[in-house]
Amino acid sequence: MAKIVECIPNFSEGRDQTVVDALAATARSIPGVTLLDYSSDPSHNRSVFTLVGDPDGIAEVAFQLCKLASEKIDMREHTGEHPRMGATDVIPFVPIKDISVDECVEISKAVAKRINDELNIPIFLYEYSATRPERENLAKVRKGQFEGMPEKIKDPDWHPDFGAPVIHPTAGVTAVGARPPLVAFNINLDTDNLDIANAIAKTIRGSSGGYKYCKGIGIMLEDRNIAQVSMNMVNFEGTPLYRVFEAVRFEAQRWGVNIIGSEVIGLAPAKALIDCAEYYLKIENFDYDKQVLENHLLG
Amino acid sequence: MAKIVECIPNFSEGRDQTVVDALAATARSIPGVTLLDYSSDPSHNRSVFTLVGDPDGIAEVAFQLCKLASEKIDMREHTGEHPRMGATDVIPFVPIKDISVDECVEISKAVAKRINDELNIPIFLYEYSATRPERENLAKVRKGQFEGMPEKIKDPDWHPDFGAPVIHPTAGVTAVGARPPLVAFNINLDTDNLDIANAIAKTIRGSSGGYKYCKGIGIMLEDRNIAQVSMNMVNFEGTPLYRVFEAVRFEAQRWGVNIIGSEVIGLAPAKALIDCAEYYLKIENFDYDKQVLENHLLG
Repeated sequence: MAKIVECIPNFSEGRDQTVVDALAATARSIPGVTLLDYSSDPSHNRSVFTLVGDPDGIAEVAFQLCKLASEKIDMREHTGEHPRMGATDVIPFVPIKDISVDECVEISKAVAKRINDELNIPIFLYEYSATRPERENLAKVRKGQFEGMPEKIKDPDWHPDFGAPVIHPTAGVTAVGARPPLVAFNINLDTDNLDIANAIAKTIRGSSGGYKYCKGIGIMLEDRNIAQVSMNMVNFEGTPLYRVFEAVRFEAQRWGVNIIGSEVIGLAPAKALIDCAEYYLKIENFDYDKQVLENHLLG
Repeated sequence: MAKIVECIPNFSEGRDQTVVDALAATARSIPGVTLLDYSSDPSHNRSVFTLVGDPDGIAEVAFQLCKLASEKIDMREHTGEHPRMGATDVIPFVPIKDISVDECVEISKAVAKRINDELNIPIFLYEYSATRPERENLAKVRKGQFEGMPEKIKDPDWHPDFGAPVIHPTAGVTAVGARPPLVAFNINLDTDNLDIANAIAKTIRGSSGGYKYCKGIGIMLEDRNIAQVSMNMVNFEGTPLYRVFEAVRFEAQRWGVNIIGSEVIGLAPAKALIDCAEYYLKIENFDYDKQVLENHLLG
Protein backbone atom coordinates (compact mmCIF):
# COMPACT_ATOMS: atom_id res chain seq x y z
CA MET A 1 0.00 0.00 0.00
CA ALA A 2 1.06 3.58 -0.56
CA LYS A 3 2.64 5.50 2.31
CA ILE A 4 0.92 8.81 3.05
CA VAL A 5 2.40 11.60 5.15
CA GLU A 6 0.76 14.83 6.23
CA CYS A 7 2.75 18.04 6.57
CA ILE A 8 1.35 21.19 8.20
CA PRO A 9 3.94 23.97 7.78
CA ASN A 10 3.28 27.30 9.50
CA PHE A 11 4.50 30.48 7.82
CA SER A 12 4.95 33.92 9.40
CA GLU A 13 2.81 35.75 6.87
CA GLY A 14 -0.93 36.09 7.19
CA ARG A 15 -1.57 39.53 5.70
CA ASP A 16 0.07 39.76 2.27
CA GLN A 17 -2.13 37.59 0.08
CA THR A 18 0.40 37.61 -2.79
CA VAL A 19 2.87 35.73 -0.56
CA VAL A 20 0.20 33.26 0.58
CA ASP A 21 -0.89 32.71 -3.02
CA ALA A 22 2.71 32.10 -4.10
CA LEU A 23 3.11 29.50 -1.34
CA ALA A 24 -0.14 27.82 -2.44
CA ALA A 25 1.02 27.77 -6.06
CA THR A 26 4.27 26.08 -5.04
CA ALA A 27 2.36 23.62 -2.85
CA ARG A 28 0.22 22.64 -5.83
CA SER A 29 3.17 22.28 -8.19
CA ILE A 30 4.85 19.31 -6.51
CA PRO A 31 3.95 15.87 -7.95
CA GLY A 32 2.57 13.35 -5.46
CA VAL A 33 1.32 16.08 -3.12
CA THR A 34 -2.20 17.39 -2.48
CA LEU A 35 -2.85 20.74 -0.82
CA LEU A 36 -5.86 19.93 1.40
CA ASP A 37 -6.31 23.32 2.97
CA TYR A 38 -4.64 26.59 3.85
CA SER A 39 -5.75 29.49 5.95
CA SER A 40 -4.31 32.81 7.05
CA ASP A 41 -4.89 34.76 10.24
CA PRO A 42 -4.14 38.47 9.86
CA SER A 43 -3.97 39.20 13.61
CA HIS A 44 -1.55 36.30 14.08
CA ASN A 45 0.09 37.28 10.76
CA ARG A 46 0.51 33.60 10.14
CA SER A 47 -0.64 31.00 7.59
CA VAL A 48 -1.08 27.27 8.07
CA PHE A 49 -0.94 24.86 5.12
CA THR A 50 -2.20 21.27 5.24
CA LEU A 51 -0.57 18.96 2.71
CA VAL A 52 -0.63 15.21 2.16
CA GLY A 53 1.51 13.12 -0.12
CA ASP A 54 3.96 10.30 -0.53
CA PRO A 55 7.20 10.58 1.48
CA ASP A 56 9.32 11.91 -1.40
CA GLY A 57 6.72 14.44 -2.50
CA ILE A 58 6.06 15.68 1.02
CA ALA A 59 9.80 16.13 1.70
CA GLU A 60 10.15 18.07 -1.53
CA VAL A 61 7.16 20.34 -0.92
CA ALA A 62 8.30 21.08 2.64
CA PHE A 63 11.69 22.17 1.35
CA GLN A 64 10.35 24.20 -1.57
CA LEU A 65 7.84 26.04 0.62
CA CYS A 66 10.53 26.80 3.20
CA LYS A 67 12.78 28.08 0.41
CA LEU A 68 10.06 30.33 -1.00
CA ALA A 69 9.14 31.62 2.47
CA SER A 70 12.81 32.49 3.11
CA GLU A 71 12.78 34.56 -0.09
CA LYS A 72 9.44 36.29 0.49
CA ILE A 73 9.23 36.85 4.25
CA ASP A 74 11.50 39.18 6.20
CA MET A 75 11.20 38.43 9.90
CA ARG A 76 12.77 41.78 10.78
CA GLU A 77 9.50 43.36 9.66
CA HIS A 78 7.16 40.77 11.19
CA THR A 79 4.56 41.63 13.82
CA GLY A 80 1.68 39.49 15.04
CA GLU A 81 0.06 37.98 18.11
CA HIS A 82 1.28 34.42 17.65
CA PRO A 83 4.75 33.46 18.96
CA ARG A 84 7.15 32.83 16.05
CA MET A 85 10.85 32.49 15.33
CA GLY A 86 11.18 31.98 11.57
CA ALA A 87 9.74 32.79 8.15
CA THR A 88 8.83 29.11 8.12
CA ASP A 89 8.11 28.79 11.81
CA VAL A 90 7.50 25.08 12.18
CA ILE A 91 7.22 22.05 9.90
CA PRO A 92 5.49 19.02 11.46
CA PHE A 93 5.32 15.67 9.64
CA VAL A 94 2.48 13.32 10.59
CA PRO A 95 2.06 9.64 9.62
CA ILE A 96 -1.30 9.04 7.95
CA LYS A 97 -1.18 5.66 6.25
CA ASP A 98 1.19 2.69 6.12
CA ILE A 99 3.99 4.68 7.73
CA SER A 100 5.23 4.99 11.32
CA VAL A 101 6.11 8.05 13.37
CA ASP A 102 9.71 6.78 13.30
CA GLU A 103 9.75 6.90 9.51
CA CYS A 104 8.40 10.45 9.71
CA VAL A 105 11.24 11.29 12.09
CA GLU A 106 13.66 10.19 9.36
CA ILE A 107 11.85 12.36 6.80
CA SER A 108 11.97 15.33 9.17
CA LYS A 109 15.72 14.95 9.68
CA ALA A 110 16.40 14.69 5.96
CA VAL A 111 14.33 17.82 5.26
CA ALA A 112 15.97 19.64 8.19
CA LYS A 113 19.44 18.84 6.85
CA ARG A 114 18.55 19.96 3.33
CA ILE A 115 17.05 23.24 4.53
CA ASN A 116 20.18 23.98 6.48
CA ASP A 117 22.56 22.85 3.72
CA GLU A 118 20.87 24.76 0.90
CA LEU A 119 19.20 27.71 2.65
CA ASN A 120 21.52 28.19 5.62
CA ILE A 121 18.60 28.34 8.08
CA PRO A 122 19.40 26.80 11.50
CA ILE A 123 17.01 24.00 12.50
CA PHE A 124 15.71 22.73 15.81
CA LEU A 125 14.35 19.19 15.76
CA TYR A 126 11.26 18.98 18.01
CA GLU A 127 8.51 16.57 19.14
CA TYR A 128 9.36 12.93 18.27
CA SER A 129 12.40 14.13 16.27
CA ALA A 130 13.90 16.00 19.25
CA THR A 131 17.47 15.16 20.20
CA ARG A 132 16.98 16.23 23.84
CA PRO A 133 13.88 16.05 26.04
CA GLU A 134 13.75 19.84 26.53
CA ARG A 135 13.40 20.29 22.77
CA GLU A 136 10.28 18.11 22.44
CA ASN A 137 7.98 20.98 23.35
CA LEU A 138 7.75 23.56 20.58
CA ALA A 139 6.85 26.35 23.02
CA LYS A 140 10.14 25.83 24.86
CA VAL A 141 12.13 25.75 21.63
CA ARG A 142 10.47 28.94 20.39
CA LYS A 143 10.78 30.81 23.70
CA GLY A 144 12.50 34.16 23.10
CA GLN A 145 11.03 34.22 19.59
CA PHE A 146 12.76 35.69 16.52
CA GLU A 147 14.05 38.71 18.41
CA GLY A 148 15.62 36.68 21.23
CA MET A 149 16.94 33.84 19.08
CA PRO A 150 20.36 35.33 18.12
CA GLU A 151 21.35 35.26 21.80
CA LYS A 152 19.51 32.04 22.72
CA ILE A 153 21.22 29.83 20.15
CA LYS A 154 24.68 30.93 21.29
CA ASP A 155 23.98 29.01 24.52
CA PRO A 156 25.46 25.50 23.99
CA ASP A 157 22.22 24.04 25.41
CA TRP A 158 20.37 25.70 22.54
CA HIS A 159 22.76 25.21 19.64
CA PRO A 160 20.65 24.20 16.66
CA ASP A 161 20.48 20.56 15.59
CA PHE A 162 21.52 21.57 12.08
CA GLY A 163 23.68 24.61 11.34
CA ALA A 164 25.92 27.06 13.13
CA PRO A 165 24.54 28.98 16.15
CA VAL A 166 23.72 32.02 14.02
CA ILE A 167 20.19 32.79 12.84
CA HIS A 168 19.35 33.42 9.20
CA PRO A 169 19.20 37.24 9.03
CA THR A 170 15.71 37.41 7.53
CA ALA A 171 14.30 33.88 7.87
CA GLY A 172 15.31 33.27 11.49
CA VAL A 173 15.23 29.64 12.59
CA THR A 174 12.80 26.81 11.89
CA ALA A 175 11.55 23.87 13.97
CA VAL A 176 11.12 20.57 12.13
CA GLY A 177 9.76 17.38 13.61
CA ALA A 178 7.45 14.38 13.48
CA ARG A 179 4.43 13.73 15.65
CA PRO A 180 1.34 11.50 15.60
CA PRO A 181 -1.89 12.94 14.21
CA LEU A 182 -3.63 15.31 16.60
CA VAL A 183 -7.38 15.37 17.20
CA ALA A 184 -8.99 18.49 18.66
CA PHE A 185 -11.79 17.04 20.81
CA ASN A 186 -14.02 19.07 23.13
CA ILE A 187 -16.64 17.86 25.58
CA ASN A 188 -19.58 20.09 26.52
CA LEU A 189 -21.04 19.99 30.03
CA ASP A 190 -24.49 20.90 31.29
CA THR A 191 -23.07 23.50 33.64
CA ASP A 192 -22.17 27.17 33.41
CA ASN A 193 -19.46 26.66 36.03
CA LEU A 194 -16.03 27.03 34.40
CA ASP A 195 -14.36 25.83 37.60
CA ILE A 196 -15.91 22.41 37.11
CA ALA A 197 -14.61 22.16 33.53
CA ASN A 198 -11.16 23.21 34.73
CA ALA A 199 -11.22 20.70 37.57
CA ILE A 200 -12.20 17.92 35.17
CA ALA A 201 -9.55 18.99 32.64
CA LYS A 202 -6.95 18.74 35.38
CA THR A 203 -7.93 15.14 36.14
CA ILE A 204 -7.65 13.95 32.56
CA ARG A 205 -4.66 15.79 31.07
CA GLY A 206 -1.26 14.13 31.20
CA SER A 207 0.56 17.17 32.56
CA SER A 208 -1.33 17.02 35.85
CA GLY A 209 -1.41 13.24 36.26
CA GLY A 210 -4.13 12.17 33.82
CA TYR A 211 -3.83 10.48 30.45
CA LYS A 212 -0.38 10.90 28.93
CA TYR A 213 -1.44 11.94 25.43
CA CYS A 214 -4.25 14.31 26.41
CA LYS A 215 -3.86 18.06 26.83
CA GLY A 216 -6.86 19.88 28.21
CA ILE A 217 -8.26 23.05 29.73
CA GLY A 218 -11.67 24.31 30.73
CA ILE A 219 -13.23 27.07 28.64
CA MET A 220 -16.61 28.81 28.54
CA LEU A 221 -18.82 28.70 25.45
CA GLU A 222 -20.24 32.15 26.05
CA ASP A 223 -22.93 31.93 23.37
CA ARG A 224 -24.38 28.75 24.92
CA ASN A 225 -23.47 29.64 28.51
CA ILE A 226 -21.95 26.24 29.12
CA ALA A 227 -18.50 25.10 30.19
CA GLN A 228 -16.38 22.86 28.01
CA VAL A 229 -13.41 20.59 28.51
CA SER A 230 -11.30 21.54 25.49
CA MET A 231 -8.67 18.95 24.57
CA ASN A 232 -5.92 18.15 22.15
CA MET A 233 -5.50 14.41 21.78
CA VAL A 234 -1.87 14.29 20.70
CA ASN A 235 -1.72 10.52 20.18
CA PHE A 236 -5.12 8.91 19.80
CA GLU A 237 -3.68 5.41 19.75
CA GLY A 238 -1.97 5.99 23.10
CA THR A 239 -4.98 7.75 24.61
CA PRO A 240 -8.17 6.96 22.66
CA LEU A 241 -11.02 9.45 22.51
CA TYR A 242 -13.52 7.13 24.20
CA ARG A 243 -11.24 6.85 27.23
CA VAL A 244 -11.24 10.57 27.97
CA PHE A 245 -14.95 10.74 27.15
CA GLU A 246 -15.75 8.10 29.76
CA ALA A 247 -13.32 9.67 32.23
CA VAL A 248 -14.91 13.10 31.79
CA ARG A 249 -18.31 11.45 32.29
CA PHE A 250 -17.43 9.86 35.62
CA GLU A 251 -15.45 12.85 36.90
CA ALA A 252 -18.38 15.16 36.07
CA GLN A 253 -20.75 12.99 38.09
CA ARG A 254 -19.06 14.22 41.27
CA TRP A 255 -20.76 17.55 40.67
CA GLY A 256 -23.98 16.10 39.31
CA VAL A 257 -22.87 17.37 35.90
CA ASN A 258 -23.54 15.52 32.64
CA ILE A 259 -22.00 15.50 29.19
CA ILE A 260 -24.38 17.09 26.71
CA GLY A 261 -22.26 16.74 23.60
CA SER A 262 -18.82 16.85 22.10
CA GLU A 263 -17.05 18.43 19.14
CA VAL A 264 -14.35 17.28 16.81
CA ILE A 265 -12.66 20.38 15.42
CA GLY A 266 -11.20 20.19 11.93
CA LEU A 267 -9.90 16.93 10.53
CA ALA A 268 -9.67 13.62 12.35
CA PRO A 269 -8.20 10.36 11.08
CA ALA A 270 -10.91 7.74 10.55
CA LYS A 271 -9.15 5.38 12.96
CA ALA A 272 -9.48 7.83 15.88
CA LEU A 273 -13.26 7.47 15.58
CA ILE A 274 -13.48 3.85 14.49
CA ASP A 275 -11.45 2.86 17.57
CA CYS A 276 -14.32 4.37 19.59
CA ALA A 277 -16.98 2.45 17.66
CA GLU A 278 -14.94 -0.70 18.32
CA TYR A 279 -14.99 0.03 22.06
CA TYR A 280 -18.68 0.90 22.39
CA LEU A 281 -19.92 -1.88 20.11
CA LYS A 282 -17.50 -4.35 21.81
CA ILE A 283 -16.29 -5.52 18.40
CA GLU A 284 -14.07 -8.57 18.76
CA ASN A 285 -10.90 -9.06 16.69
CA PHE A 286 -11.49 -6.09 14.43
CA ASP A 287 -8.69 -5.55 11.91
CA TYR A 288 -8.80 -1.86 10.99
CA ASP A 289 -6.41 -2.10 8.03
CA LYS A 290 -8.13 -5.08 6.45
CA GLN A 291 -11.79 -4.57 7.37
CA VAL A 292 -12.34 -0.90 6.63
CA LEU A 293 -13.27 -0.79 2.98
CA GLU A 294 -11.72 2.61 2.26
CA ASN A 295 -8.30 1.37 3.32
CA HIS A 296 -8.27 -0.72 0.17
CA LEU A 297 -8.96 2.29 -2.01
CA LEU A 298 -5.98 4.41 -0.91
CA GLY A 299 -3.39 3.29 -3.41
CA MET B 1 -14.02 14.16 -5.72
CA ALA B 2 -13.82 10.87 -7.55
CA LYS B 3 -16.87 8.63 -7.64
CA ILE B 4 -16.18 5.09 -6.46
CA VAL B 5 -18.48 2.12 -7.05
CA GLU B 6 -18.13 -1.41 -5.73
CA CYS B 7 -19.22 -4.40 -7.79
CA ILE B 8 -19.48 -7.93 -6.36
CA PRO B 9 -20.34 -10.29 -9.24
CA ASN B 10 -21.08 -13.92 -8.39
CA PHE B 11 -20.10 -16.61 -10.91
CA SER B 12 -21.33 -20.20 -11.08
CA GLU B 13 -17.87 -21.76 -11.05
CA GLY B 14 -15.97 -22.56 -7.85
CA ARG B 15 -14.10 -25.71 -8.80
CA ASP B 16 -12.20 -25.13 -12.06
CA GLN B 17 -9.35 -22.85 -11.03
CA THR B 18 -8.43 -22.07 -14.65
CA VAL B 19 -11.81 -20.38 -15.13
CA VAL B 20 -11.48 -18.46 -11.85
CA ASP B 21 -7.95 -17.38 -12.79
CA ALA B 22 -9.15 -16.20 -16.20
CA LEU B 23 -11.89 -14.13 -14.56
CA ALA B 24 -9.32 -12.63 -12.16
CA ALA B 25 -6.99 -11.79 -15.06
CA THR B 26 -9.82 -9.99 -16.85
CA ALA B 27 -10.77 -8.18 -13.63
CA ARG B 28 -7.21 -6.90 -13.31
CA SER B 29 -6.99 -5.81 -16.93
CA ILE B 30 -9.60 -3.03 -16.83
CA PRO B 31 -8.22 0.49 -16.23
CA GLY B 32 -9.71 2.35 -13.27
CA VAL B 33 -10.68 -0.86 -11.48
CA THR B 34 -9.07 -2.62 -8.51
CA LEU B 35 -9.76 -6.26 -7.71
CA LEU B 36 -9.94 -6.20 -3.91
CA ASP B 37 -10.66 -9.85 -3.33
CA TYR B 38 -12.01 -13.03 -4.85
CA SER B 39 -12.86 -16.37 -3.36
CA SER B 40 -14.28 -19.66 -4.56
CA ASP B 41 -16.39 -22.22 -2.73
CA PRO B 42 -16.16 -25.71 -4.27
CA SER B 43 -19.24 -27.09 -2.51
CA HIS B 44 -21.28 -24.08 -3.68
CA ASN B 45 -19.40 -24.26 -7.01
CA ARG B 46 -19.45 -20.49 -6.99
CA SER B 47 -16.95 -17.61 -6.92
CA VAL B 48 -17.43 -14.09 -5.60
CA PHE B 49 -15.33 -11.18 -6.84
CA THR B 50 -15.04 -7.84 -5.08
CA LEU B 51 -14.10 -4.93 -7.32
CA VAL B 52 -13.97 -1.17 -6.87
CA GLY B 53 -13.50 1.52 -9.46
CA ASP B 54 -14.82 4.59 -11.16
CA PRO B 55 -18.28 4.29 -12.79
CA ASP B 56 -16.97 3.74 -16.33
CA GLY B 57 -14.38 1.20 -15.26
CA ILE B 58 -16.78 -0.72 -13.05
CA ALA B 59 -19.39 -0.89 -15.83
CA GLU B 60 -16.77 -2.16 -18.25
CA VAL B 61 -15.37 -4.81 -15.89
CA ALA B 62 -18.85 -6.08 -15.03
CA PHE B 63 -19.62 -6.53 -18.72
CA GLN B 64 -16.28 -8.13 -19.59
CA LEU B 65 -16.49 -10.59 -16.70
CA CYS B 66 -20.05 -11.52 -17.65
CA LYS B 67 -18.91 -12.04 -21.25
CA LEU B 68 -16.01 -14.28 -20.22
CA ALA B 69 -18.22 -16.26 -17.83
CA SER B 70 -20.72 -16.84 -20.64
CA GLU B 71 -17.91 -18.29 -22.75
CA LYS B 72 -16.33 -20.43 -20.03
CA ILE B 73 -19.25 -21.69 -17.93
CA ASP B 74 -21.91 -24.08 -19.19
CA MET B 75 -24.84 -24.05 -16.78
CA ARG B 76 -26.14 -27.33 -18.24
CA GLU B 77 -23.22 -29.02 -16.46
CA HIS B 78 -23.40 -27.02 -13.22
CA THR B 79 -24.02 -28.61 -9.84
CA GLY B 80 -23.60 -27.02 -6.41
CA GLU B 81 -25.33 -26.29 -3.13
CA HIS B 82 -25.98 -22.58 -3.71
CA PRO B 83 -29.09 -21.54 -5.65
CA ARG B 84 -28.12 -20.13 -9.06
CA MET B 85 -29.66 -19.27 -12.42
CA GLY B 86 -26.81 -18.07 -14.62
CA ALA B 87 -23.11 -18.36 -15.45
CA THR B 88 -22.91 -14.87 -14.03
CA ASP B 89 -25.56 -15.30 -11.38
CA VAL B 90 -25.84 -11.82 -9.97
CA ILE B 91 -24.09 -8.45 -10.40
CA PRO B 92 -24.69 -5.96 -7.56
CA PHE B 93 -23.42 -2.38 -7.77
CA VAL B 94 -22.82 -0.55 -4.49
CA PRO B 95 -22.13 3.18 -3.98
CA ILE B 96 -18.92 3.73 -2.01
CA LYS B 97 -17.91 7.35 -2.42
CA ASP B 98 -19.43 10.53 -3.86
CA ILE B 99 -22.14 8.58 -5.64
CA SER B 100 -25.73 7.72 -4.76
CA VAL B 101 -27.64 4.46 -4.95
CA ASP B 102 -29.73 6.08 -7.69
CA GLU B 103 -26.64 6.67 -9.81
CA CYS B 104 -25.70 3.03 -9.27
CA VAL B 105 -29.18 2.07 -10.46
CA GLU B 106 -28.40 3.91 -13.72
CA ILE B 107 -25.09 2.06 -14.04
CA SER B 108 -26.82 -1.26 -13.40
CA LYS B 109 -29.39 -0.59 -16.12
CA ALA B 110 -26.74 0.41 -18.66
CA VAL B 111 -24.72 -2.73 -17.93
CA ALA B 112 -27.87 -4.87 -18.04
CA LYS B 113 -28.80 -3.49 -21.45
CA ARG B 114 -25.31 -4.01 -22.84
CA ILE B 115 -25.16 -7.61 -21.57
CA ASN B 116 -28.45 -8.37 -23.23
CA ASP B 117 -27.63 -6.50 -26.46
CA GLU B 118 -24.20 -8.03 -26.96
CA LEU B 119 -24.42 -11.41 -25.21
CA ASN B 120 -28.10 -12.17 -25.59
CA ILE B 121 -28.48 -13.08 -21.90
CA PRO B 122 -31.87 -12.10 -20.40
CA ILE B 123 -31.59 -9.81 -17.38
CA PHE B 124 -33.70 -9.32 -14.27
CA LEU B 125 -33.20 -5.99 -12.51
CA TYR B 126 -33.32 -6.52 -8.72
CA GLU B 127 -32.93 -4.66 -5.40
CA TYR B 128 -33.03 -0.87 -5.89
CA SER B 129 -33.01 -1.35 -9.68
CA ALA B 130 -36.12 -3.56 -9.65
CA THR B 131 -38.99 -2.54 -11.90
CA ARG B 132 -41.59 -4.31 -9.72
CA PRO B 133 -41.67 -4.86 -5.93
CA GLU B 134 -41.62 -8.65 -6.29
CA ARG B 135 -38.32 -8.44 -8.15
CA GLU B 136 -36.50 -6.59 -5.36
CA ASN B 137 -35.67 -9.80 -3.52
CA LEU B 138 -33.03 -11.84 -5.34
CA ALA B 139 -34.25 -15.11 -3.81
CA LYS B 140 -37.68 -14.60 -5.39
CA VAL B 141 -36.15 -13.72 -8.76
CA ARG B 142 -33.91 -16.78 -8.69
CA LYS B 143 -36.60 -19.18 -7.51
CA GLY B 144 -36.79 -22.15 -9.89
CA GLN B 145 -33.08 -21.75 -10.62
CA PHE B 146 -31.41 -22.41 -13.96
CA GLU B 147 -33.42 -25.58 -14.58
CA GLY B 148 -36.79 -23.95 -13.95
CA MET B 149 -36.02 -20.64 -15.63
CA PRO B 150 -37.05 -21.54 -19.24
CA GLU B 151 -40.63 -22.08 -18.05
CA LYS B 152 -40.64 -19.30 -15.43
CA ILE B 153 -39.72 -16.48 -17.78
CA LYS B 154 -42.49 -17.39 -20.21
CA ASP B 155 -44.91 -16.18 -17.51
CA PRO B 156 -45.63 -12.51 -18.35
CA ASP B 157 -45.10 -11.69 -14.64
CA TRP B 158 -41.57 -12.98 -15.02
CA HIS B 159 -40.59 -11.70 -18.43
CA PRO B 160 -37.04 -10.40 -18.15
CA ASP B 161 -36.40 -6.66 -17.89
CA PHE B 162 -34.03 -6.88 -20.83
CA GLY B 163 -34.36 -9.48 -23.56
CA ALA B 164 -36.85 -11.98 -24.90
CA PRO B 165 -38.38 -14.55 -22.51
CA VAL B 166 -35.89 -17.21 -23.56
CA ILE B 167 -32.87 -18.13 -21.48
CA HIS B 168 -29.35 -18.16 -22.89
CA PRO B 169 -28.78 -21.88 -23.55
CA THR B 170 -25.54 -22.15 -21.56
CA ALA B 171 -25.35 -18.91 -19.54
CA GLY B 172 -28.95 -18.87 -18.29
CA VAL B 173 -30.13 -15.53 -16.94
CA THR B 174 -28.45 -12.89 -14.80
CA ALA B 175 -29.72 -10.52 -12.09
CA VAL B 176 -28.28 -7.00 -12.11
CA GLY B 177 -29.01 -4.30 -9.57
CA ALA B 178 -27.89 -1.60 -7.19
CA ARG B 179 -28.01 -1.70 -3.42
CA PRO B 180 -26.45 0.20 -0.50
CA PRO B 181 -23.34 -1.29 1.13
CA LEU B 182 -24.08 -4.22 3.41
CA VAL B 183 -22.43 -4.77 6.79
CA ALA B 184 -22.40 -8.25 8.32
CA PHE B 185 -22.73 -7.52 12.04
CA ASN B 186 -23.17 -10.17 14.74
CA ILE B 187 -23.81 -9.70 18.45
CA ASN B 188 -22.68 -12.34 20.95
CA LEU B 189 -24.75 -13.05 24.07
CA ASP B 190 -23.75 -14.52 27.42
CA THR B 191 -26.20 -17.38 27.05
CA ASP B 192 -26.16 -20.83 25.49
CA ASN B 193 -29.89 -20.55 24.78
CA LEU B 194 -30.47 -20.26 21.04
CA ASP B 195 -34.16 -19.52 21.61
CA ILE B 196 -33.22 -16.23 23.25
CA ALA B 197 -31.04 -15.20 20.30
CA ASN B 198 -33.87 -16.10 17.93
CA ALA B 199 -36.41 -14.19 19.98
CA ILE B 200 -34.17 -11.11 20.00
CA ALA B 201 -33.49 -11.42 16.26
CA LYS B 202 -37.23 -11.44 15.68
CA THR B 203 -37.66 -8.14 17.57
CA ILE B 204 -35.00 -6.28 15.61
CA ARG B 205 -35.32 -7.50 12.01
CA GLY B 206 -37.49 -5.58 9.60
CA SER B 207 -39.34 -8.61 8.26
CA SER B 208 -40.98 -9.27 11.63
CA GLY B 209 -41.61 -5.65 12.64
CA GLY B 210 -38.19 -4.43 13.73
CA TYR B 211 -35.78 -2.12 11.99
CA LYS B 212 -36.44 -1.90 8.25
CA TYR B 213 -32.87 -2.37 7.05
CA CYS B 214 -31.84 -5.15 9.42
CA LYS B 215 -32.03 -8.86 8.62
CA GLY B 216 -31.29 -11.20 11.49
CA ILE B 217 -31.44 -14.72 12.87
CA GLY B 218 -30.19 -16.48 15.96
CA ILE B 219 -27.32 -18.94 15.60
CA MET B 220 -25.16 -20.96 18.00
CA LEU B 221 -21.41 -20.49 18.15
CA GLU B 222 -20.73 -24.12 19.00
CA ASP B 223 -17.04 -23.67 19.80
CA ARG B 224 -17.81 -21.01 22.41
CA ASN B 225 -21.17 -22.45 23.43
CA ILE B 226 -22.88 -19.08 23.15
CA ALA B 227 -25.82 -17.83 21.13
CA GLN B 228 -25.45 -15.02 18.63
CA VAL B 229 -27.78 -12.59 16.89
CA SER B 230 -26.40 -12.74 13.35
CA MET B 231 -27.37 -9.78 11.18
CA ASN B 232 -27.05 -8.26 7.75
CA MET B 233 -27.34 -4.51 7.92
CA VAL B 234 -28.53 -3.82 4.38
CA ASN B 235 -28.57 -0.02 4.69
CA PHE B 236 -26.48 1.28 7.56
CA GLU B 237 -27.61 4.87 7.00
CA GLY B 238 -31.24 3.83 7.32
CA THR B 239 -30.61 1.53 10.28
CA PRO B 240 -27.29 2.34 11.97
CA LEU B 241 -25.30 -0.36 13.77
CA TYR B 242 -25.51 1.37 17.15
CA ARG B 243 -29.30 1.29 16.98
CA VAL B 244 -29.55 -2.48 16.69
CA PHE B 245 -26.75 -2.85 19.25
CA GLU B 246 -28.71 -0.85 21.82
CA ALA B 247 -31.95 -2.61 20.88
CA VAL B 248 -30.35 -6.04 21.31
CA ARG B 249 -29.00 -4.85 24.66
CA PHE B 250 -32.38 -3.85 26.03
CA GLU B 251 -34.26 -6.81 24.57
CA ALA B 252 -31.70 -9.19 26.08
CA GLN B 253 -32.22 -7.69 29.52
CA ARG B 254 -35.66 -9.31 29.65
CA TRP B 255 -33.86 -12.65 30.07
CA GLY B 256 -31.06 -11.29 32.24
CA VAL B 257 -28.78 -11.77 29.25
CA ASN B 258 -25.92 -9.42 28.38
CA ILE B 259 -23.97 -8.61 25.25
CA ILE B 260 -20.43 -9.92 25.55
CA GLY B 261 -19.12 -8.77 22.20
CA SER B 262 -19.83 -8.28 18.54
CA GLU B 263 -18.25 -9.08 15.20
CA VAL B 264 -17.99 -7.26 11.92
CA ILE B 265 -17.50 -9.87 9.21
CA GLY B 266 -15.48 -8.89 6.16
CA LEU B 267 -15.39 -5.31 4.94
CA ALA B 268 -17.34 -2.39 6.35
CA PRO B 269 -17.46 1.19 5.06
CA ALA B 270 -15.76 3.57 7.49
CA LYS B 271 -18.96 5.60 7.79
CA ALA B 272 -20.91 2.64 9.20
CA LEU B 273 -18.56 2.67 12.21
CA ILE B 274 -17.91 6.40 12.45
CA ASP B 275 -21.68 6.99 12.65
CA CYS B 276 -21.56 4.85 15.82
CA ALA B 277 -18.65 6.82 17.29
CA GLU B 278 -20.66 9.97 16.57
CA TYR B 279 -23.62 8.57 18.52
CA TYR B 280 -21.73 7.29 21.56
CA LEU B 281 -19.43 10.32 21.84
CA LYS B 282 -22.42 12.63 21.23
CA ILE B 283 -20.44 14.54 18.62
CA GLU B 284 -22.30 17.68 17.55
CA ASN B 285 -22.45 18.85 13.92
CA PHE B 286 -19.97 16.30 12.63
CA ASP B 287 -19.44 16.52 8.87
CA TYR B 288 -18.26 13.08 7.77
CA ASP B 289 -17.21 14.11 4.27
CA LYS B 290 -15.22 17.13 5.37
CA GLN B 291 -13.87 16.11 8.78
CA VAL B 292 -12.58 12.61 8.14
CA LEU B 293 -9.06 13.10 6.89
CA GLU B 294 -9.01 10.05 4.60
CA ASN B 295 -11.94 11.41 2.61
CA HIS B 296 -9.57 14.04 1.24
CA LEU B 297 -7.10 11.41 0.07
CA LEU B 298 -9.46 9.44 -2.15
CA GLY B 299 -8.89 11.32 -5.38
